[in-house]
Amino acid sequence: MAMPHEGSNLLQVKVLAFDVFGTVVDWRTGIATESAKFLSQIGQDCANAGAFADAWREQYIAAMIGMKRSERQFVPLDVLHREMLVATLRSWGVDPTSVDKALLEEWNRAWHRLKPWSDSVPGLTRMKARFPIVTLSNGNVSLLLAMAKQGGLPWDAILGAEVSGAYKPDPKAYLRTAELLDIAPGQLCLVAAHHSDLAAARNCGLLTAYVDRPLEYGGAPAPDADQAQNWDWSASSFVDLAEQFGC
Amino acid sequence: MAMPHEGSNLLQVKVLAFDVFGTVVDWRTGIATESAKFLSQIGQDCANAGAFADAWREQYIAAMIGMKRSERQFVPLDVLHREMLVATLRSWGVDPTSVDKALLEEWNRAWHRLKPWSDSVPGLTRMKARFPIVTLSNGNVSLLLAMAKQGGLPWDAILGAEVSGAYKPDPKAYLRTAELLDIAPGQLCLVAAHHSDLAAARNCGLLTAYVDRPLEYGGAPAPDADQAQNWDWSASSFVDLAEQFGC
Repeated sequence: MAMPHEGSNLLQVKVLAFDVFGTVVDWRTGIATESAKFLSQIGQDCANAGAFADAWREQYIAAMIGMKRSERQFVPLDVLHREMLVATLRSWGVDPTSVDKALLEEWNRAWHRLKPWSDSVPGLTRMKARFPIVTLSNGNVSLLLAMAKQGGLPWDAILGAEVSGAYKPDPKAYLRTAELLDIAPGQLCLVAAHHSDLAAARNCGLLTAYVDRPLEYGGAPAPDADQAQNWDWSASSFVDLAEQFGC
Repeated sequence: MAMPHEGSNLLQVKVLAFDVFGTVVDWRTGIATESAKFLSQIGQDCANAGAFADAWREQYIAAMIGMKRSERQFVPLDVLHREMLVATLRSWGVDPTSVDKALLEEWNRAWHRLKPWSDSVPGLTRMKARFPIVTLSNGNVSLLLAMAKQGGLPWDAILGAEVSGAYKPDPKAYLRTAELLDIAPGQLCLVAAHHSDLAAARNCGLLTAYVDRPLEYGGAPAPDADQAQNWDWSASSFVDLAEQFGC
C-alpha cells in the first residue's frame, strides 16, 4: 500500500495531527452494536443496526456544512450528535419524545466509547516516540478525552474543532491548530482516512498522510473516494505509517 | 504534611487539573541556570542569575492582572514572557535592542525546558491511573506540549489560559476548563502550590488540593502565603497527594 514519497517532507514535520472518527476508531461497529442494544430496549427491531449507524453518521457531513453556512454559534459535537440521534429516530419511525431522556443521553455517549482499530494504539505509540501526536478532530474535548482514557489512546494534546472554534473542513480548524502549536501549516501533518479532510488540510498548506480504512463503512465505498489525490504519505495501517515515518 | 479532609469530596472528583509553573516544574532553578548562560553570552555578570529569574517572574502576576484590566486581546504567554524578558534586561541595565534577536528567542524558550520536581512524574503517573490529568496553566499550548515531551509529563489533555481565552485568576479560565471537560466546577479539582490560584478556583466552585513547594522561590517565602486556607487536600508532594487520593 505504501506509495513513494519525498523523504524531505518528513524533515519538515514537527507535529502529527490525527483525524479520529474512522481513522483511529471504528465508529460504525461501535455505534451499530450499541444502537442494536438501545433499539431493542425501546422495543424496536434491532436487526438493521448497521443501517441505523449509517443513517446517524450520514447527517454528520450535512451538519458540518450547516454549521458553517448558518449563523449558529459553535456548539460541541455532543450536542450535534444528540440532535442527529433525534432526527435518525424520527426517520426510523420512532417518536423521540416518547424515549426516556437518560436513555437518549446514554445512547449519544456511544460516540465516547468507540474502540480503536487494532493497529491504532501500537502505531500511535511508535509515532509518539518521535513526534508529538495530537487530535485534529471534530469531536469535543470531553468526548475525545473519555475515548482516549477508555481506548488507551496516548495523545500528547487534544486539539481540533472545539479548541479552534470551527469544524473541519473550515480552514480555521486546521490553521488555528497549527497556530496553537506555534508551527507553520507546512510543519503539521494531518493523518486521516478521509480524502475530503486531507484535501481541505492540503489547501491550508498542511502535509497529508492517508491511512486506508476499507472497513469504515462496513465494506461499502467511502463517500469521498472521488477526492483521492497523491498524498504525501499513503499507508495501509498506523503501523505501516510508523514504518514509513521511520519510527 | 497531610491534613484531614472529607473523604466524600474524593467521590465528587472527575478530573484533576494542575497548575504547572512552580507546582509541577521548578521554574526558578531552570530560569536561573539558563539565564546565567545567556547573561554570560552577552558579557554580563551572571553571579546573580537567581535574582534575574526572580525579577523576570515577578512581572508575571502584574502582567496577568494587566491583561484582565486592559482591553488587550489575549496573547499567548510566550509573547508576555518575551516582553517581560526585555523589561527585565532593561532593569538589569542591559539595552535589549543590542541583544541578538535569535538569542532572545532562545532565552525566552527556557520556559519550555523547565524540569519537573523529582516527585512530579511518579505522582502524576499514579494519579493518571485513576483520574484524567490535565493542565490548567497560564502557559500556552505549544509551551506546555514542549515541556511535557521533554520532561515526560503524561498529561491527558493540555487545557488552561490559551484554550479558555483568559488568564488565571480570571474566573473564565477555571469555568471554561470545567465546561470543556463537560463537568460541574465542583467535579474539577485544581492541584496547585499557590494559595492565590486555589483561592480563585474555590471562588469558582472547584475543589482544591495544595501541594507544598518550599523551594519554589529558592527558600524565600511565597508572595501569597497570606491567602492560605484549609484546602480540601494538602500534601507535601505529588506522591503524598496520590496516596491521599488512594491512587
